[in-house]
This record gives sequence, structure tokens and C-alpha cells, in this order.
Amino acid sequence: MGRQLPEIQVFLNDLPGNDFNTIFKSLPRFQKDLEKRMGAGAESCFINGAPGSFYGRLFPSKSLHFIHSSYSLQWLSQIPQGLESNKGNIYMANSSPPCVLKAYYEQFQTDFSMFLRCRSEELLEGGSMVLTFLGRRSEDPSTKECCYIWELLAVALNDMVAEGLIEEEKMDSFNIPQYTPSPAEVKCEVEKEGSFTISRLEVSEVNWNAYHGEFCPSDAHKDGGYNVAKLMRAVAEPLLVSHFGDGMIEEVFSRYQKIVADRMSREKTEFINVTVSMTKRG
Amino acid sequence: MGRQLPEIQVFLNDLPGNDFNTIFKSLPRFQKDLEKRMGAGAESCFINGAPGSFYGRLFPSKSLHFIHSSYSLQWLSQIPQGLESNKGNIYMANSSPPCVLKAYYEQFQTDFSMFLRCRSEELLEGGSMVLTFLGRRSEDPSTKECCYIWELLAVALNDMVAEGLIEEEKMDSFNIPQYTPSPAEVKCEVEKEGSFTISRLEVSEVNWNAYHGEFCPSDAHKDGGYNVAKLMRAVAEPLLVSHFGDGMIEEVFSRYQKIVADRMSREKTEFINVTVSMTKRG
Repeated sequence: MGRQLPEIQVFLNDLPGNDFNTIFKSLPRFQKDLEKRMGAGAESCFINGAPGSFYGRLFPSKSLHFIHSSYSLQWLSQIPQGLESNKGNIYMANSSPPCVLKAYYEQFQTDFSMFLRCRSEELLEGGSMVLTFLGRRSEDPSTKECCYIWELLAVALNDMVAEGLIEEEKMDSFNIPQYTPSPAEVKCEVEKEGSFTISRLEVSEVNWNAYHGEFCPSDAHKDGGYNVAKLMRAVAEPLLVSHFGDGMIEEVFSRYQKIVADRMSREKTEFINVTVSMTKRG
Repeated sequence: MGRQLPEIQVFLNDLPGNDFNTIFKSLPRFQKDLEKRMGAGAESCFINGAPGSFYGRLFPSKSLHFIHSSYSLQWLSQIPQGLESNKGNIYMANSSPPCVLKAYYEQFQTDFSMFLRCRSEELLEGGSMVLTFLGRRSEDPSTKECCYIWELLAVALNDMVAEGLIEEEKMDSFNIPQYTPSPAEVKCEVEKEGSFTISRLEVSEVNWNAYHGEFCPSDAHKDGGYNVAKLMRAVAEPLLVSHFGDGMIEEVFSRYQKIVADRMSREKTEFINVTVSMTKRG
């Protein structure tokens, strides 16, 4: 509409231990590109880093107009208590006993309601929030659509236990601090917390292999097993290394890549995303 | 007065290339200490990183109550143009021709007035600003009280030129992008810019050796030459390395330490600080 870009103040949040320096170093280039596309006024986009856990307050009361979180909220604030009986698994799985599923669900409820309460205090009235995270369609928390990718990593780890490369006790005490909720579970927490009105709640899927069906710029990208193992390694390596030490990491992902490639060749493998858009009540 | 700590949002500014990660990693500990001292409410101190040059806008209009800058504003936005005749020197010096002093002063005027204009747009009416930076008492810009520390570094560099360890042309084209203003020069720029009323303008001094006259926890700290050379290396190494390469850096600071130690044993050596407190006009 020919109007000048308004002043925009952006806060990029992540845990204090993550790498803000690389992001900050890329900002001058980002600002230059923005200026090229938007013309005058682009210099009024002010970008800050906000280190801290989003399961606590990060910003002053009523100071934000819009909040976006992408692919982060499936992470829990901690590994749920009471997973001792989840032996042989590293996440919720078909063979997990009910108390394990309950422990995961309760941790999700505690964390997600805390997130909603904190953000509702920080948003201005009428402000809104769009969240995208890994989830599931099914009401069964141990459904393949969210748990299979971790079950295959458990297969690799259990093989290494069987061969004496990993201690069984170590394997039994390892669990991934994630929860992949259904749309109904998300809706339930938002309504219980009470500060927000949901405007849209959608489910979408994306192939495990991000390059699936697309033009592939390099041969490496054609190898789905390689791509998915790399993706999951980026996600899981810090967790695995801090629990098992770094001696096993090459071996476990080499095995995982083969297992994943085999399954991908025989079935449709997709992540499920839940996206919810909501507005703060007056 | 028994009141609860108000919500405080703090922005830590530095150039995008500097190390924010280390600061951010120290924040959880800082918050814990603050909580111990302040009790409830300390969790309402929100700390952000604001990467960017303070010689441009960093924050939205009228969004700040208080601005503080410590030991940064002596840095210019760039090496002044027109220093070709400053041969044998690396900063303003007794032997610098008048055009060099003029080039330095004009760069200070451009930069400091830009700083004042940007910050005045970001401050709320009645908001205030306290700035501390290296400066001088004298109206002579090449006075020993601000230039001597760099003149001694030039001595070390010139010795290495004489011994063929550094190319003369390299030495002649190296200049430090600093300016150490007098209180009158600061006052003049603030008045010209017009947005601020100065409430206090003070000069103080601090010994080159920060441990001078204090209880020294270790023997190393008793060695003034060592302390000052280390301090100046922290400041100047990136500038020297990017101009001369890193092959010369140990040698130059080893020589500098000896030169500094010799002078410190024979005369009083102090940095001059200028501190100015000002309020934004209504």
C-alpha cells in the first residue's frame, strides 16, 4: 500500500547455551538484503537475542504483539520422572507400559500450560501467537506416526547393547525429552489455561526426507537414509553424547542410517506437524 | 522501601562479531545471584543481546528509559580519512601534523553527534544517559595524558621497522581508530545536537596499572609492565593482527612490556576518564 515499513523489534529466543554468535554475525547481511527488498525503513528492523528457557518468563508484561515458535515446543523442559519401566525404548513406543505414557503426557501438560501462562502475560491484549511443532493425528500417544523415528534409533542402540558395545543399564536409563501431542491435547491445554482463543488448529505432514520428490541439487540428497540420519543426528547427538559418551556416536548413526534407509524403501514415512494460531483474549 | 523489584528489560549492545555466547552462558548464574540478593522479583530482570554498531539506530523510537555506555565511546566508527602524513605514529602524537589532529577531531564530531542523535530518538522524554569513556583534561588533542600509551606502542613498532621485522609502509599506514575528547569537546557536541541537558560532566583518572596501590592477590599483578601490556594487547591485538598479520604479535608486546615497565618506574602514568550524565529534553 506504499506505506513505510513500521519499526519492528524482533527477539530471537533460544537456550543460553546455544550459538547466538553465528546468528548475530549473519545479521548485517540480512539487514542489507532486507533493505534491498523493502527500500527505506528496513533499517528500522531491530533484532535482539533473548537467551532463556521458554518454560519461564522471557519478556516484560504486555510487551509483545506477536509470538512465533517453530519446531521447538515438542521439547519438554526435562525428561519425565518415572520412566524406569521403559526398558528397551528411548521414547514412547508400542511396548511402553501405560505409566510411561502417563508420565510423558503429564510432563507435556505441565510444560505446555506453563508456556501458555508465560506467553499470555507477555502478550498485549489482542496479540497473537502461531506455534508449529511435531505432533500426531492419532489419539494414541505411542502411534507409529510420531514414535517410529525414535523406535528405529532404539533398534540401533539395542543392537549395540546385544553386541556388548553399550551397557544395558545405560540404554534402559536413556529417554528422549520430547512429547508429540495430538490436536485435541493441544486444544485441551489452551482451553484449560484460558487466556487464548484458538483461531486455527491444523495438522500437516512432511516426508522424513526433506528432499523427497523435489529437484535434488546433489547426489547426496537423493539418499533418504543419509538425509534422515543426518537430520536426526543434528537433533539427538548432544543428548546421546551426554548420556553415552562420544565413543559410540559414529557407530550408532551408521547403523541408524541403514535401518532408516531400509524402512523408507518399504513404507511411507512422514513427520506430523501440528500448527495452532491463537489470540489473547481481552 | 520494601517495594518489589519492578520488571527490568536490559539490552547488552556490542558489535555483531563479538562474543555474546559467553555472556549469555553466564546469565543463569547471574540471575541466581540476583535472586539471592533481591529475593522475589529478580526473575523479572530480562536480559537481551542487541548486536549492532551504536553509531546507528539499535532500538525503536522512544523505547528506552536509561542508556549507559562504559569505555566504548572512545572508539571511532572508522579510521579517519587523510592520515597519510602521520608517519611513524599510530595515533595522535606530539609529532602529528595539524591536518592529522583535524581529521581525528572531525571523525569524533561526526561519530559522537550520530551517537547522540540515535540515542535521543530511542530515549523516552526525561530519560537519561550516563557515558564514560577515555578522554583527556587538556585542550591539546596530542597531550601525553591520552596519547602516551599509544606512542610507546609506536616505539616498539618503529624499533621493529628499524630491524626490518616490519615494513615501513605497513607501519605508516597503521592508525588507531580512537579519539579521546576533552570535557569541552564533549559539551560542545551535546549542545550542538540539542536533545540533551547535561547534568554532570566529570573527569577522573585511573592508574595504567589497575592493581596500583591495591592488595595484590598474585605476584604477576605486581608487575605493572606486564599488566599494562596485557591490557593493551586485549585492546589492540585484533587491530594489529588484521593489519600486520599475526607473526609479529608476540614480539611487539614483549618489546612493549619492557618499554612500558621502564616508563612506569620513572613517571606517573594514568588514563583520564570523562564521564557525562545527561537527560533528554521535553
